[in-house]
Amino acid sequence: MPDDNPRDDIQAFVPGPRVRIDGRPGGPLSGLTFAAKDLFDVAGHPTGGGNPDWARYNPVPTRHSSAVQRLLDAGATLVGKTITDEVSLGIVGENAFYGTPVNVKAPGRVPGGSSSGSAAAVAAGLCDTAIGTDTGGSVRVPASFCGLYGIRPTHGRIDVAGMMPQAPSSDTAGWFARDAATFALVSSVMLGEAIPSALPDRLIIAVDAFAFADPEVGAALQPMVGRLKALIGEVREEIMAPAGIVHWARAQRTLQPAEAWLTFKDWIERCNPRLAYNVARNIYTGSQIPESERHWASLVREEAQGRMRHLLPPGTILALPTTPFPAPKRGEPLSVASLQRDRILCLCAHGGLTGVPQISIPGATVDGLPIGLSIIGARGSDAALVAVAQALEAAG
Amino acid sequence: MPDDNPRDDIQAFVPGPRVRIDGRPGGPLSGLTFAAKDLFDVAGHPTGGGNPDWARYNPVPTRHSSAVQRLLDAGATLVGKTITDEVSLGIVGENAFYGTPVNVKAPGRVPGGSSSGSAAAVAAGLCDTAIGTDTGGSVRVPASFCGLYGIRPTHGRIDVAGMMPQAPSSDTAGWFARDAATFALVSSVMLGEAIPSALPDRLIIAVDAFAFADPEVGAALQPMVGRLKALIGEVREEIMAPAGIVHWARAQRTLQPAEAWLTFKDWIERCNPRLAYNVARNIYTGSQIPESERHWASLVREEAQGRMRHLLPPGTILALPTTPFPAPKRGEPLSVASLQRDRILCLCAHGGLTGVPQISIPGATVDGLPIGLSIIGARGSDAALVAVAQALEAAG
Repeated sequence: MPDDNPRDDIQAFVPGPRVRIDGRPGGPLSGLTFAAKDLFDVAGHPTGGGNPDWARYNPVPTRHSSAVQRLLDAGATLVGKTITDEVSLGIVGENAFYGTPVNVKAPGRVPGGSSSGSAAAVAAGLCDTAIGTDTGGSVRVPASFCGLYGIRPTHGRIDVAGMMPQAPSSDTAGWFARDAATFALVSSVMLGEAIPSALPDRLIIAVDAFAFADPEVGAALQPMVGRLKALIGEVREEIMAPAGIVHWARAQRTLQPAEAWLTFKDWIERCNPRLAYNVARNIYTGSQIPESERHWASLVREEAQGRMRHLLPPGTILALPTTPFPAPKRGEPLSVASLQRDRILCLCAHGGLTGVPQISIPGATVDGLPIGLSIIGARGSDAALVAVAQALEAAG
Repeated sequence: MPDDNPRDDIQAFVPGPRVRIDGRPGGPLSGLTFAAKDLFDVAGHPTGGGNPDWARYNPVPTRHSSAVQRLLDAGATLVGKTITDEVSLGIVGENAFYGTPVNVKAPGRVPGGSSSGSAAAVAAGLCDTAIGTDTGGSVRVPASFCGLYGIRPTHGRIDVAGMMPQAPSSDTAGWFARDAATFALVSSVMLGEAIPSALPDRLIIAVDAFAFADPEVGAALQPMVGRLKALIGEVREEIMAPAGIVHWARAQRTLQPAEAWLTFKDWIERCNPRLAYNVARNIYTGSQIPESERHWASLVREEAQGRMRHLLPPGTILALPTTPFPAPKRGEPLSVASLQRDRILCLCAHGGLTGVPQISIPGATVDGLPIGLSIIGARGSDAALVAVAQALEAAG
């Protein structure tokens, strides 16, 4: 049923005939449906990347991306490709060419991006899970804004073959689900690892991250934090980024756009693509970052990675708000949206900078709008974080 | 006949039903047809400005622009609105949304811009004349590339009411024609002044401008220059810009984009429009020009204005190549096109900087491609320049 869209007003899927590929019978995900952000190759279909000039200048893929293949092999059925912010550059989920997917959990608000359509589709019940990408927050932010489970896995953990890159040293492939059981099932397939039953035994509350979020967000998350404390046992408060969250964010906002420029410059040179003004501005400013700035930012990245190793030995997790506020209104003026973006990215920068895994867990609201609580662990502790998310739902 | 396009492959006109408004019977331009660049208001039709997001955020005009009204009142019939570089920011005539109008005089080459469709339509014989705008070269360059007569009038001479602005201190409304008689007829209407029979009696050859152009251009223009010398009588060689053409161009490329930013910033802020990458880049870099740079550029403008007053007393005209080379190939990579643009704008900067009138006269080719010879006079000498263009055709 290629054109069957039960909720066309959601605008989660890319325009045109809907892709559908049945999963392999008998797999662990049989009976589940999934959607793929339009950054993931699906054989025989153009990878649009959220921009009308990307597919025009790139060949139609002949193989599925690794992430799509893995889900199909496990039995899940692909039911569509989803809208993304242009070439994954965006954090609120507004696409000037294809529209803004509707956030059913926060009417009139953005879905978050850049994995906007994947989050919107899962939130609206159009599929059971969906894959997205997270370079600077693009799974974590829409998970928070749409009230979903969403993971940014350890950098390098998930094969990104066939996934359109942005900044490879930060790029990851993640996924969303509405409930912890589905999230755990998909996670075990994607991670290739059983979800453990034992939980971490030390919890750090990132006081700087909570202080950076709106006060209402910290208050709204307190019941979840309380349940998390009860689950884990040993709890202490710590500053995550002693030099400042903003200092980390500035390093990420130096390294990521400079690297994105290297990814996109040949495309820009060959085809002078159409882009929303703010996307073009981001690409251009990335092209202008001096080597000396990149050098210092690389040192900040090393320091941040060391800080995370110090904070997060095996068995320790850290909790922080996923976003500093719930989903902003759609259609904000550019200067307002830019300031919102900057604050959002400050709470996400540690991911791209250090590569640690992070899961955003739903369960709280501010004025009826979803807001996620995030947990972070050491590199490679992805499955342990999934176990915490499951246990927290059970304790809810 | 709103959908009648005799040469659809020219792509000179904006997409959609063709505008047609009959001129007032009995006027001096009765029987002539004209087209208007999509920067000029035509009552009841959106002014597109070459970008899909300009018309969406601006009301449909209820009055004709002054230039359109003047031609209709004089009896000319409007037969279409023409493609322009986005928001008039461009000099080669490639529009990423609506395509590149075909230059019938130089197959495979760009038409020049930003008044690309107006020039292409006149060159292809789709209308007798067409109005365009010239801020930094947008009439002069397509006139040169398409082998047409084209005028950038004295700044402030033609009423720009109802014309979409770019940089008001440089913006002008100009027009094209294939032959000198039509050009003179339209000019007398637009200028509101009879074309004199007496010619200027002193001619300056701008040796720096000729030296800046490709050697083949200077050679190709020599026969026309020879006829011009014979017509005028007293001839001398001078440097037009003693401080350097590039110095003037840098001042114009400081003042014009800074002013364009003021023109477009509310639109950018409100609607984050879709733009080709290079257009967005130009707008953004305009936003970043410091006041101190604008200050020095303003002083360079004053110096250049003084230089032009010194060089061009009444009865003196100056000759220079309109463009440093004929029309470049279509679809050049961005870095190549950017370098071409920079050289083109160097030969045009005096116009926006000093406000003097300039006419590009056809009649020469390089490898079969048209190249224009320009004449400049003191502010207000527009009609005298038209007289020279007519006399030169008669002497050809």
